[in-house]
Parts: sequence; structure tokens; C-alpha cells
Amino acid sequence: MIPFQPILDSLKSYEAGKPIELVVREFGIKPEDVIKLGSNENPFGCAPEVVEIVCNAATKMSLYPDDSYLDLKNALAQKFEVTPDRIIPGNGSDQVLDFACRSVLTPGDSILINRITFAMYKIYALQCGANVHSTESVPHDLNAFLDLTKAVKPKIVFLCTPSNPAGDALSKNEVYEFLNQISPDTLVVIDAAYMEFGSKKDPKKFIPAKEITDLYPNVFYTGTFSKAYGLGGMRIGYGIGNSELIGNLYKMRPPFSVTNLSAFAATEALKQQKYVNDYLENNLQQMKRYEKFAADNSIEFIDSYANFITLFVRKHGKTSSEICQSLLRQGIILRDLKSYELNAIRITIGTPQQNDRVLFALNKELN
Amino acid sequence: MIPFQPILDSLKSYEAGKPIELVVREFGIKPEDVIKLGSNENPFGCAPEVVEIVCNAATKMSLYPDDSYLDLKNALAQKFEVTPDRIIPGNGSDQVLDFACRSVLTPGDSILINRITFAMYKIYALQCGANVHSTESVPHDLNAFLDLTKAVKPKIVFLCTPSNPAGDALSKNEVYEFLNQISPDTLVVIDAAYMEFGSKKDPKKFIPAKEITDLYPNVFYTGTFSKAYGLGGMRIGYGIGNSELIGNLYKMRPPFSVTNLSAFAATEALKQQKYVNDYLENNLQQMKRYEKFAADNSIEFIDSYANFITLFVRKHGKTSSEICQSLLRQGIILRDLKSYELNAIRITIGTPQQNDRVLFALNKELN
Repeated sequence: MIPFQPILDSLKSYEAGKPIELVVREFGIKPEDVIKLGSNENPFGCAPEVVEIVCNAATKMSLYPDDSYLDLKNALAQKFEVTPDRIIPGNGSDQVLDFACRSVLTPGDSILINRITFAMYKIYALQCGANVHSTESVPHDLNAFLDLTKAVKPKIVFLCTPSNPAGDALSKNEVYEFLNQISPDTLVVIDAAYMEFGSKKDPKKFIPAKEITDLYPNVFYTGTFSKAYGLGGMRIGYGIGNSELIGNLYKMRPPFSVTNLSAFAATEALKQQKYVNDYLENNLQQMKRYEKFAADNSIEFIDSYANFITLFVRKHGKTSSEICQSLLRQGIILRDLKSYELNAIRITIGTPQQNDRVLFALNKELN
Repeated sequence: MIPFQPILDSLKSYEAGKPIELVVREFGIKPEDVIKLGSNENPFGCAPEVVEIVCNAATKMSLYPDDSYLDLKNALAQKFEVTPDRIIPGNGSDQVLDFACRSVLTPGDSILINRITFAMYKIYALQCGANVHSTESVPHDLNAFLDLTKAVKPKIVFLCTPSNPAGDALSKNEVYEFLNQISPDTLVVIDAAYMEFGSKKDPKKFIPAKEITDLYPNVFYTGTFSKAYGLGGMRIGYGIGNSELIGNLYKMRPPFSVTNLSAFAATEALKQQKYVNDYLENNLQQMKRYEKFAADNSIEFIDSYANFITLFVRKHGKTSSEICQSLLRQGIILRDLKSYELNAIRITIGTPQQNDRVLFALNKELN
């Protein structure tokens, strides 16, 4: 018997959103008839220029990536107005979150997270043998974070803003006020996976990566190409901090963890800002249709700063699981938040046509 | 100051083979004039059918991968005649090696490796706070492994066969004899990244993944698409073991770590066995040119079962670093093994045309 290390006993894997392949397999629905609004992907796909770059580079798949990821880091450095040595790339921002955990946490340490938040913080921390403390409210409550930071002395605090899967967002002022009051020995991760959506809706929610990591050397800012940039399948994210912080995280980084095609795609995607902006605009406009639907049907929801809306369906005589399962049979993939202990459904804002179909199906389901 | 965990002080990053981009940047050589034979990539690239599949799938880059990787696992299951639950995919076989380390090792544990071997075993073990013991000879010496296994009681033993960067390979009989003599509590990793090359040259070097993991539940067999299949840039590897072992390693696996295009590419690559076999044939034939060159120039080398040859150049009045640097200025990337404390050069066997140029340049350099 292999002596697996004791931490393994307490671990469980991440529950991913359902893929189209699963719906095709389980319900015999044609792939082109499946609407996937369960994983907060860009429903328009990535920019056509990015597809073209990848096709042109496909003959280079045999070559290992340039492990310095210089072109990608230069492009990100320009976008965020930092030097490239303040950037670490990762296999999705997931992986840079893992670097942060593994660089800091040893068994018995603590982390602090929001009650409802991205599941990977907890999973990575548990893999390090750390204890996970969380606040009690669904939206982020920084007073609760402050109290708990003093009480449990976490090595890492995770703030997800805009927040997944609830959709709330913190303002820059709130975050700075929080940072002013906690010890500079506490690593604060600002997971900004949905920042493009949040700052489009309200500039006060914009957290400037350079400024915050200049002012607070204990801040690690993370971002992704999986959401606004439409590259969820290509697994590219990044972290930004001061160069000393990044140098330390680099020690936990394996080589080549971003594919060469992913790096080419991300570098090109950063050039296609108009495409991204059009998508952000669609997101804002189409979000209003779901808000109206919720209001019309007395469904509670949280004002969302992301590319999804979370509907609390407890008053409707059906559980979120029943509703999601019924829509799944019709080829519509939404995210049941039961695993977050919420009787709620998270719906990615789709294209106008996708939203037509979802709203029609939801209407039938709830009325 | 962030309290980074103490293990970080002892870590250093992997030294990757030089990318073409670096030679272009540093020496102003056109990309098309650079010959990259430093990273044991397939010099012919991947099969054209794989390129086509990837181009056709490029519009799906926005969609997260099917995290079950069912199609890829089914294809691998067929190749290796095991059930899919005995397979774990990874971001290169690197990542499944990391899963093995993190599932077993805690600070103070030991691993045992060959003196000259793939650098990541040590890096991943050190990240877990483990101690690294190694044998003394350049090729694998299983008697030395056996003695040290008894002496240092490693939690994991790594056998790399065919071995990188030396090129030697163990026979199935030797490996089984070793496994018969050690405790079933010791995890034995068989890194078979170069297995396709080794078993082509000599069937006795073939280690059957199903049989070995059936007979020895403490064996974890790993393979990759980066070498024979020509997908080094796409980061796809896999591990095979009994289902209980794989279930445990899955607990350390982050979701989505293989991109969707990589999974499509690998699944298609497995269908293109004739393409791969032609490459293996070229490798064997072209290897002979380097062996003859070495013999003609009294250069020591190890009989290689991989897609590279390692030349020991100590008798030639120049260090491996001087020779590699000189060839680099001519646009030829080879791997200097100085970082392995060998005065040796590892050369990936290229296309006939690439080998013409390398042998011409080496001849000038050494005579």
C-alpha cells in the first residue's frame, strides 16, 4: 500500500460546470442545439483574429513554449503599466492562485475567504493542509473580513471582485480602506477574473493592478483570459505583484504550463480591445433582460458586476436543482449553486438569441 | 513582509532548453534559419491531420475543456488496454509527476533518483520539502537503486527509461526483478516519456503499462505527447496505475489543466500511428550518423534508446559550454549538460537536413 500523505483523506475535487459533450452523451441532443451558459464563458467566442493566429501557429505545436513567455508578458506589462518582472503567467488564473497558496501555506496555517466564492481557494489551501475560515454573508462584507482577519490571523485573505458566483463587487476605496487596516504580513489576493465586466459597469469598482501592488506590497492581483477575452479552453491567466513577491511565486511554478498556442492567442487577444468592448456592451444590455425577468417574477437576485446573474429561486416551489435539471434536458446548461449551499441558479449572460431561449424556458419552468 | 514558507529558500527553477525566440533576439538570426535540437521535440512536427483538427476546433477556444477528458482517456485506454479510470491526464507528464509527489511526500520524506535524470523529479520533491537521494552512475544501475532503497527508505523511486538526458534504457526483466525485491509500500514511478523510441530499437526495453501496473500496484507509469507525437508545445501527458492509485492522485489535480485544443490534438495524434512510426524509423537511421561521427572522432557516447544522443566531449580541449555557445551563434540550439555536472552535449536527432548542418558544424568545431 502506497503511504499517501494524510491530507489526501480530506480532499475532494472541484465540481466543474457541465460540458456540452456530457449533454450530448446523456440526453442525445445535437451539439449545435446545446446552449452552454454554466461556466461564464464568452458566448461569442474569442475574436476572429485570435482564431487566425492560432491556425497559423498550429504547425508549431511540436515546439515547447518560450518558457519566459516574453511576448505575452510584454503585452500584459503594457496593458497594466508594470514591468514584466511583476507578472507571472499560469495555466488559468487558477494556477497562479495555487502558486500563492503553495508559496505561503504550511499545514495548520489559515486562510480567509468569503462564504460564497470561487471554490479553488479552499481546494488549494486544503491541499497545503491549511485551515479555511469564511465570512457569513453572501456578498463580500469587508467589516466581517476585518474582524476575522484579527481573530484567525490568516496567512492569506482572498477577495474575489467582482465575485463569483454571487456577482457583487467591491469598490477600490473599500478595498484600500481594508488594506490600510490589516497587517502587511497578510497576503491579500485580489481575484479580478471578472474585472473587465465590473469596471465597465461602474468605474468605481475598478482596481488598478499597478497602483494597488505599488501601494500594498502584500497584494497579489490575478486576472484571466478565460472570461472577457473568450479563451476559457486555452487556460491562461496571470498574476501581478511587486517583483519580490512574483520572484517568490516563480519558485513554485513548473515550466511550460501555458501552451504555446495559448500564449500566442492571449497576446493577440490583448490587441482586439474593440471586440472585447463590444462583448462587454452586449453583456450590460442583455443583463437588463434577466433583471427585468427576475423583477417581473419576484425572483431575488444580486446586482451583478460580472458576466452572469445569480437568481435565488426559493419562493418558486422548485429547487434550483430541479430547474437546472429540467433545462438541461432541453439542452440548456446553467449552474446549479446547490454545491454552494444556495437555492440559486447562476446564468451566464449569453448572446441575444441564447437569452431568448433561456428566458422562454425559465418562464415556462417558473410559471 | 509576506511570510513565505521556509521551503522556498532552497528552491530553484527548472532550466529550460533555449527557445528559438531567444536565439532570434540575442543573435539576430532569422527564425527559419534556427535549428532547434535542444529539447527533444519531434523535428518533423506533429501529423498534418492533427494540425487540421486543431484549426477546425480553434473557434471553440472560448469553451472550457470537458474536464473528464473522456475522449482522450478512451483513446489512451484503447492504446494501453486499460480502463479509463486507470488514467490521469496532465499538463505534460511533468504535471502527473507533480501529482505523484504531492500525493505522497511530506517534509522530511525521501525520494530516490538516478544521478543523471530528468530535473523535475528533484524540483517537485523539494517543493514538498522532501530529501533527494541519488545513485552515482550515469546510466541507471538497479543494484545501486536496490541498496539505496534499503538504506534511505524513499517514499518514491523514479526510474526514467529510456533515460533523459543520458539515453540508456532498462529492460522489462530488469525492472520487474527490481520491483520484486522492494517493498510494495514504495511508489515506483516509471517515466516512459521516450518509450516509443526505446521499444522501437529493442522490444526488450518495452515496459507494458497494463501488465506492470496490474502486477505491481505500487507502480505509476507516465507517458507524454511531447516527444514521439510531436506535441511538446501543447502540454499533454498522462499517468497510468491501478484505479485506487489514480483516484488518489486525482485529489491533487486541478481542473482543466489540459487545454481543449491539446486534448483534441492528442486524441487525433493517437490515430496517426504511421506518421509516428515513420518518425521513429528516421530517428533510428539518423542516430547512426551521429554514432559514426562520434566513433570517427573518438567521442564517448552512451548507446541511446531515445530521440537524442549524448556526446561526452572532455577529450577535445573544449568544454561542452564552449561548443554549445559556438553552435548557438550559428543558429543551432543543442543542450549543454553542464547543469547536470557533465561535460557533455545532448543533441536531439533532427531531420536529415538538420543533421547535415549540425554534423558539419560539429566537425568544424572539434577538428
